[in-house]
Amino acid sequence: MRAISSISFSGQLEDKITAAAENGFDAIELFREDIIGFEGTPDDIGPFAREAGIKILSLQSLRDFEGLTGAARTEALARAEKFLDLAQRIGAEMLILCANTRADSNAAGALEDLRLLADMAASRGLKVGYEALASSRQITSVTAAYEAVKAVGRANFGLVIGTVHLFASASGSLEDALATLREIEPKDIFLVHLADTPTTRIDPALIAASFRLFPGQGTLPVAALYSQLVVQGFEGPLSIETFNDQIRSLPATRIAEDAMRAFHLLEETHARGAHPRSDVQAPGLVEFTAQGEDADDFIRLFTALGFAKTHENGAVSLWRQGQITLALNTAARGLAHSIYLVQGASVSGVGLVVNDMPLMLDRIGRFHGEAVELAEPYGLARLRGPGGSVLFLQPEAFTPGSEFTATGAKPGDGLTHIDHVAQALQPNLFLSGLLFYRATFDLRAHELRDVLDPHGTVHSRTLVNDSAAFRMSLNASFGAGTTTQRFLGKSGFAPFHHIALASDEIFGLAAKMEPQDLLSVPANYYEDLALRFDLAPDFIARLREGNLMYDRDERGTYLQLYTRAINGFFFEVVERRGYTGMGAANAPVRMLAQLREIEAEEALHLL
Amino acid sequence: MRAISSISFSGQLEDKITAAAENGFDAIELFREDIIGFEGTPDDIGPFAREAGIKILSLQSLRDFEGLTGAARTEALARAEKFLDLAQRIGAEMLILCANTRADSNAAGALEDLRLLADMAASRGLKVGYEALASSRQITSVTAAYEAVKAVGRANFGLVIGTVHLFASASGSLEDALATLREIEPKDIFLVHLADTPTTRIDPALIAASFRLFPGQGTLPVAALYSQLVVQGFEGPLSIETFNDQIRSLPATRIAEDAMRAFHLLEETHARGAHPRSDVQAPGLVEFTAQGEDADDFIRLFTALGFAKTHENGAVSLWRQGQITLALNTAARGLAHSIYLVQGASVSGVGLVVNDMPLMLDRIGRFHGEAVELAEPYGLARLRGPGGSVLFLQPEAFTPGSEFTATGAKPGDGLTHIDHVAQALQPNLFLSGLLFYRATFDLRAHELRDVLDPHGTVHSRTLVNDSAAFRMSLNASFGAGTTTQRFLGKSGFAPFHHIALASDEIFGLAAKMEPQDLLSVPANYYEDLALRFDLAPDFIARLREGNLMYDRDERGTYLQLYTRAINGFFFEVVERRGYTGMGAANAPVRMLAQLREIEAEEALHLL
Repeated sequence: MRAISSISFSGQLEDKITAAAENGFDAIELFREDIIGFEGTPDDIGPFAREAGIKILSLQSLRDFEGLTGAARTEALARAEKFLDLAQRIGAEMLILCANTRADSNAAGALEDLRLLADMAASRGLKVGYEALASSRQITSVTAAYEAVKAVGRANFGLVIGTVHLFASASGSLEDALATLREIEPKDIFLVHLADTPTTRIDPALIAASFRLFPGQGTLPVAALYSQLVVQGFEGPLSIETFNDQIRSLPATRIAEDAMRAFHLLEETHARGAHPRSDVQAPGLVEFTAQGEDADDFIRLFTALGFAKTHENGAVSLWRQGQITLALNTAARGLAHSIYLVQGASVSGVGLVVNDMPLMLDRIGRFHGEAVELAEPYGLARLRGPGGSVLFLQPEAFTPGSEFTATGAKPGDGLTHIDHVAQALQPNLFLSGLLFYRATFDLRAHELRDVLDPHGTVHSRTLVNDSAAFRMSLNASFGAGTTTQRFLGKSGFAPFHHIALASDEIFGLAAKMEPQDLLSVPANYYEDLALRFDLAPDFIARLREGNLMYDRDERGTYLQLYTRAINGFFFEVVERRGYTGMGAANAPVRMLAQLREIEAEEALHLL
Repeated sequence: MRAISSISFSGQLEDKITAAAENGFDAIELFREDIIGFEGTPDDIGPFAREAGIKILSLQSLRDFEGLTGAARTEALARAEKFLDLAQRIGAEMLILCANTRADSNAAGALEDLRLLADMAASRGLKVGYEALASSRQITSVTAAYEAVKAVGRANFGLVIGTVHLFASASGSLEDALATLREIEPKDIFLVHLADTPTTRIDPALIAASFRLFPGQGTLPVAALYSQLVVQGFEGPLSIETFNDQIRSLPATRIAEDAMRAFHLLEETHARGAHPRSDVQAPGLVEFTAQGEDADDFIRLFTALGFAKTHENGAVSLWRQGQITLALNTAARGLAHSIYLVQGASVSGVGLVVNDMPLMLDRIGRFHGEAVELAEPYGLARLRGPGGSVLFLQPEAFTPGSEFTATGAKPGDGLTHIDHVAQALQPNLFLSGLLFYRATFDLRAHELRDVLDPHGTVHSRTLVNDSAAFRMSLNASFGAGTTTQRFLGKSGFAPFHHIALASDEIFGLAAKMEPQDLLSVPANYYEDLALRFDLAPDFIARLREGNLMYDRDERGTYLQLYTRAINGFFFEVVERRGYTGMGAANAPVRMLAQLREIEAEEALHLL
């Protein structure tokens, strides 16, 4: 059973219930605090949910109940009675009980209290789910909570397991977490709370409070736990319970969509071996939308990079080189033009090469059911990605159809293929976008990396597929002055920020390009290179001459060249000699150089 | 000597050097990466800084140098040579060396390498400062680094201490940190890096990388370390070295101003006993700017709350009750009107009661030298606070001068004084505003608290003075949909979000007020109260009747009533019966109720 907790959502309770129901959840857990925001009485919630088509799984959460003495115990029992009343009124199946965190709670008497609660619940037809917290006084681990559940010995008293807490109890070891699960009878588990975390380098209590993500958005192997539960025969409810400011700043519907996508990704990962999948390759086609002078600017840049105009179809021209096709769409209608109207000259679509189209379309349908449309004049399937960006699905290297007229020009050669693409997202869409790409195209996400922009920090995650044939980076930043955020300031949707083209002879290309088409690398960069790497002075001189940047990892070296920007978008040319990264060490220098360009341009606008 | 590291700043190196010099810093440390962004050659940096009037203290940082063998050692020595060359070229006094983090570094040979480096530096007239890192392989603590410094035994080889690292080494214990310092000869300390942290619940390495604040902005007792260093006779350079996205999103000049304010606060805290200070009391005067219908709205609300118009002076009317004066300024000129033009009807000034005006003006001059102006028609000093907000300084309870004509009306009674004020700030100004209030008015800051808004999280810190006579909360949020951020969307500056008025008979006031002047509390709030507290049903019924909220802490109880909002601003009336908090538990419910109001209002605007 796929469930979600109301705490994962933004908005009012009505929005939360409706969004969960409409996105296919079977059940919702209700935080006590969320009931306050319901317009009707608590008794109206059950019928409202039934009407929406969703069950009320639980009331969250009775706290600080068991193991107290004297007046505190009397108060706790009275409070428990009220919570059970409320659970019954809202039509929940179960009351969640968090293990007592009070300093004056004892192990002695706790079992008796738990049995009493179970019996009070049973008389109302309710179950009780018992959950250990890191901050609990006696019951701090899943194992301890399970011991208590067995000792209580009531059929309506069971275990609640949270994935974040399970990992923290296991000190981050997947093996230990799986071993803990294996010791537990599936029938004793009443509920599993699913959440991921961005890092394990934060105190577990702080993660619990502020840094919980949907499975797949963080770095915990939640999928492995999910698989283990399935293998053990667990058939009870799994509920996504997150707490995160970025997630909660989205509308409830979007949150529910993403949460359901996270479920599907868990299920697909579990069934991974069972059915065949389609892989993706490096993008082959990139469409640009532009008008007037901006269109001329793109043509100048395409030409400078060695692309030749091989085909035309009305307002759409194709510029080809190696496996790359750049389409320049200057039509005054259609989706590309809509994008132009909103954000000016920009990328209006990126085409991913899909190995097996029917399998991929099936996967897309499964993951987010977004309609795939036909993109003309290319005759390709089109999908809308994060922030409204446009993705084409190419069955193979793009070949212009008969609707295009050949110009007779030969494609350029030098650049071979697209190395990677970079997309910028508003910070509140970062996690959502990450999940979109992971789920849709079966990508793995590297750990979060922070890149220093002169005016803030750009958060970046690299996504790759197993074959490393497809690479992209997703970037977001909170600072309004960063190059990423300035680009987004101009860009309503489709925010592909730059595209990296692969070359086998970057020095030759650099020698041919005019300085005004290149981003000017600060001279002191080359002084700094000499400090960082043991490079021959004449090699550094050649780099400087070509405005090239350099990086190295344990596998090889990397050469980079950046073009000037058009409305914030730019190309990168890279020559990869065994190197596996994306040149992140050079990104701050690139941002600094672009900042100078932006400021020079802004100064001109003031004239 | 007051210094700052270039990593603390945003922008290009030229901006950083200039901002540091103009704000009174004696010296700046240069991160290697920042040199890349300098327009001239490295040799031009020294003259540029001299011209600006500031010294180059150090080059940061040589890493992974000592204790290597074979080719790695040869490479490290060549690299060290280049770093020393660069330090000399930029005119630095010192090269910072971070203790080796490489897995293949050994204790054996390390001392010899350090001596060699010291001698290489000495031949260039340079010093070397040695700093332990949490991630270092052999030298992980300040004490270990100090042992190494003594063992090296070179006059130009000394210790670099970082406050964040010192606390982490001492497992957060101030006593242990001070004990570590006491063991160190001041002459052996070449440099102290000052930084604070928001929480100690994050891995030290992560704090070092992303969560360093200016002293006074976080929760570490940096001032106690500072005092100890002064007492021990340390006279060497102290340098603020932070790394934080919020700070770096501000302009370099603002960063330098705040950093210098942090220095002054450390110095003032150290000298605390030595010179007398002025305390502040609860605000007495609040000025509102409004025109037309909004002015009528305020008058209606003032009247509903029991204020009477006692004085007039042209377009300014005074509404008084207890120790509170509300001024309504409808003039079409002056600062209040400027504020009206930018953000509409709003608070245009809050008057703090100052016990000793000359002492306070002296303190203000010392801390930020901001010009204090005369605010007419009140005859009060006026200071500009965070986000451009306006603060009046009242010498005592405000008494209208002869420029005001008495209306003959008697002041209201019921409300006694202002309990607290709440200010909303854009997230990148949150830390800066916190430091402003702490420094200017000698306030203490409680720990950060996160309040759940229906559409995100509101970060809140409470500021109080020793006598608890003055209380305020500062609030910020990243989510665009939170009530705080929606308010700021309307509010260019002077963003006082609400003002809490103290009452001794809140039930009486609630009974007199019309429902349309009050924020309507959701009915289920009272259901929830019955769950949380053991309250008599008829007491809950009285709360519900009055639209009152309730909270309790170990010291007493708290009753709250909220008015409707005018352009996002609202009053709160509180009755405090021993309770010391600010009713944070009720804030999410208030935000939810306001969200409904906002949405209803927005729906009307669409008609």
